[in-house]
Parts: sequence; C-alpha cells; structure tokens
Amino acid sequence: MSTPFTLYKTFCTLFNKNRRSDEATTALLELCESALSVLHELDKRELISKVAGKTYFSFDNGVRTSRPINTALFDESGGAAKLFMEKLLHNAVTDLSSDDITSACYTIAMSFISLIDVEKQGDQKTPGTYFEYFICHLFARSFGVDPQTRINVLNLDRPASLPTDWIFDLGKGQPKFHLPVKTSTRERVIQVWAHQRVLDGVYGVGRFIGTLACLAETKLDSRTREVVEICLPDQWRIYQMFIAQLQRVYYLDVPKPYEPLSRDFPRIHVKPFGVFFHELEELCSG
Amino acid sequence: MSTPFTLYKTFCTLFNKNRRSDEATTALLELCESALSVLHELDKRELISKVAGKTYFSFDNGVRTSRPINTALFDESGGAAKLFMEKLLHNAVTDLSSDDITSACYTIAMSFISLIDVEKQGDQKTPGTYFEYFICHLFARSFGVDPQTRINVLNLDRPASLPTDWIFDLGKGQPKFHLPVKTSTRERVIQVWAHQRVLDGVYGVGRFIGTLACLAETKLDSRTREVVEICLPDQWRIYQMFIAQLQRVYYLDVPKPYEPLSRDFPRIHVKPFGVFFHELEELCSG
Repeated sequence: MSTPFTLYKTFCTLFNKNRRSDEATTALLELCESALSVLHELDKRELISKVAGKTYFSFDNGVRTSRPINTALFDESGGAAKLFMEKLLHNAVTDLSSDDITSACYTIAMSFISLIDVEKQGDQKTPGTYFEYFICHLFARSFGVDPQTRINVLNLDRPASLPTDWIFDLGKGQPKFHLPVKTSTRERVIQVWAHQRVLDGVYGVGRFIGTLACLAETKLDSRTREVVEICLPDQWRIYQMFIAQLQRVYYLDVPKPYEPLSRDFPRIHVKPFGVFFHELEELCSG
Repeated sequence: MSTPFTLYKTFCTLFNKNRRSDEATTALLELCESALSVLHELDKRELISKVAGKTYFSFDNGVRTSRPINTALFDESGGAAKLFMEKLLHNAVTDLSSDDITSACYTIAMSFISLIDVEKQGDQKTPGTYFEYFICHLFARSFGVDPQTRINVLNLDRPASLPTDWIFDLGKGQPKFHLPVKTSTRERVIQVWAHQRVLDGVYGVGRFIGTLACLAETKLDSRTREVVEICLPDQWRIYQMFIAQLQRVYYLDVPKPYEPLSRDFPRIHVKPFGVFFHELEELCSG
C-alpha cells in the first residue's frame, strides 16, 4: 500500500504536469485519506486553547507533536473531504455551504501537514509546498485557467520580469488575480502588500485583485501546551493604508484578532476560505 | 581571560544601556581582538572564488567551516580595526580613507561572525544581532543621536505605531534616516523597500532618507568550495521604481552585480560602507 509520502510525490508530479487535472484532484483525495488513516493510529492530545471559542488538539507519536488542530474544523472521518473532492471533480463546489467547504479544505490541508509534523523533524518546507500546491489547484480549477509565477514588467530600456506568487489572468476584459499562499504569515506578510504595490505600479491600480490565502496563525507552546494566535492587526492596517490594498484575505482557520478588520477602516476583508467559491463571480464582476 | 563570547555579552549589555558610549566602542575592539586571536589558531582554507577580481578563504576548526572571507578586505593583524576604533573614540573617523574604514569595519564584523560560524552550529541569530548592533553603534556615534525602533503613524481614529528598523531623527529641520541593517538580503529585501514606502506614505516622500547597510551577498557551496554572489539586480530595479526609493545601499563587501546599479536607471547608489562617513554631511544637506 502507498504511504502518504509516496502519494504526496504522485500529487506533486501530477500538479506540475497540469495544475488543474482530474488526476491531481483524485491524487489529493487519496493523499488525504491515507494521511487520515495513519493519524488514526496516533494519540490525540488535548491542548489548552487561549483562543476564545475555539478548541485545539494535536496528534502525537510519542516523539513529536503536530501543530494545533482546530477541533470544530477537522473532520477525521474524511467524509467532508471526500464529498468536497467529488464536487470539485464535477465543478460543483458551490453545492456545498461555505462552512462545509472550509471544513473539508481544512481537513485536506491539516491531515497531511500534521503527519509531516510528527514524522519529519524540522521539515518546514514540505508543509508550505503542499499547502501552496493544494490551494493553487483549487483556484486553478475554479478559475478554469493555469496560473503564472512570473510577469513582464514594462520598462523603457530593458525587458524585465518579476517572479510573483500565483497569478491568474482570466483573459481580456476580465480581472487578474494575485494569489499569495502562506501557511502562516507573521512578520513576512509585508511582502504580500509590497508585491501588490509593484503590480499596481506596473499595471495600474485595480488591474490585479489581491487575494491572500492562509491556513492559520496558531502557535503551540510545547512546554505549557497552550495555543495562542499570533496576529498583527495594527500593522496590517498600516500596510493596507500605505503600501497597497488587498481585496480579500481567506483563512482556513480565521484568527480572532483579524475578524474585526472587515468592519473597521481601512477595511480588510478577512473571511473563511469557503466563502471564496460563493463570491467568486461577484469578485470577478466587482 | 575573557572569551569572545563573554566579551560579546558585555558589548550587548553596554550597547543596550547606551547606543553610543565610549565603553561600547572599547568593548567592540576587545571583542574583535579576542576573536582574531582565537581565529589565529584555526586553519585557513582557500576557496574557489567565482567572483571576478575577488579572492576568498574561510576559517576551519576541523568540524565546521566559516562563511567566505574576502582576502583583500580582512586585516588579520587587527591593526586597521584598532586604528579605526581609536578614531571613532575621538569622533575623527574621516581622518581615514573610505577604503581603510571599509576594511576595518569588515574585519570587526567578520572576525566575530566567522568565529560564531565555526563554534556554534546553526546559530543564525547571533551573527545578525551582532552585525546590527555594530552598525547601529557606528551610525549612532556618527549622527550623535540615539535611534528609535518604533514610530507613530498618524491616523484619524486610533493611535498606531509601527515597529521599524533603526530610525535616526537628527532634529528639527534636519533629515531623518531609515537604516535597515542585514548581513545579507536575498529575497527578504523587499521588506526594506516596503518599510520605506510606509514611511514615505505617512510622513511624505523625502522626509526619511533610506540607507540600507549590508555585510555581503556571498554563498559558499560546501561540497565544491566555490564562492558565488547571490544577487537580484533586476528585482532591485523594480522595487526602486515601483515601491519606494532608497537613497543609498552600503556594503562592506560590495557585490559585483550591484556595482552597475548606480550608473543605470533607476539609479540605486550602492557604495562601499566607508564612503558613508565621508558623504554624511552631503547626505544631510542634500
């Protein structure tokens, strides 16, 4: 039987061949189900949540502990993930509610990522790559176009191009999406606004819709077993006012301190990830 | 006798008490001399330089190898460092040529940093902190004012402040300097332009003079022992055009690919570190 790590390699190969193939979708589901079945054999340890209204646990193999997992969002049965992937294959994701999409995607992301946490000491790279590929695959299927990761920058004297996060160009007269993907942001997030600023400067404000997609901002103190969320809402407001404007920030596990950002000025619309699929048309026409 | 690591702690304590005291200057020199005497006992290994016109070596304790050291800039005798520190104590640094200042400062930075490389496996933090404190101490003494690391951001509804790199406010009618310090930049450098953009947006363009200070951009391939410089001049040009404008970039070991940036458009004035002391007045009045 294939292990999650060989299934991950298969998914990467398929994704790199075709960003939005049915084969990649199927491989993702197999990977998720395989990871869930391995996790099923591990101990679950309750954590002390310092986040109001949320509870967290982690998987533990006796040597290492996974990052915190949101109990309400994680569907260990795999049922939500399976249903979501079936809908995705038939391009009918919006048959599901935003909450169901968010929970399914959280499970697909977290199942393999928490397995990496317990099985591969100090591997920071694989969770990031997996999450980026997973989210990009979903967006590519939803937009129906392949992403670019480099765009031309007009210049008087010399041709130049800028490496970027995922960029989706929906074609003539349609919007273009700038889609950075991060498992967590911390102090590196200023890069996202700076890249948006470059796109605005080169192509004009409003041509690229900046949508940041993140997993969570939780942090586990391994000594006390306490879970907190590391957030910088005041700095986000400054970036949104003085560097560039992001249209949306989607989280699989929306951090509490970012919830008020969509009500205050400057508005930063932070929403659960599943909402994207239901507001995609509105975003495109807005 | 005190080891370099206890002398480093002494320097940090003094620096955190007073950014520009004579005691901190003296502690720095002791640290440099102590590090040089330890390094003197280690093997020196020649490296294969892939950088035209520069040669590099590294120190080796049989277990670990230091980062590459520029042969022409590093003065193992400690004479240049001692002379520079004496001049610094008497606020007479400009008695020395730019080249002599650069070489002395390179030696003071590299002596302790290369010792950390060989003695402390995987310690990335201490070299960065040491370099930042060292450079800040030099600038604070030169400007004659203490730096801030947080500035107020005006806002209609709420008070907010932004954590920044070192900021030197020379007072009413005088310029303010925004001084980020990095041992190397790589892909994180976009943060520097983004912070400059925030300062420009909040206080107006031209109020803060952005001056980035860096050590080097060399990279050692431990297998082949080849030294290369990792540079992104095309991306720097894009940041300089579309995010904000840095007035100066000072390097202790100026990377070859950044040399032409001061001749092309958009101009980015990349200069050897020692030049700063000789053009400080011009920068202030410019």
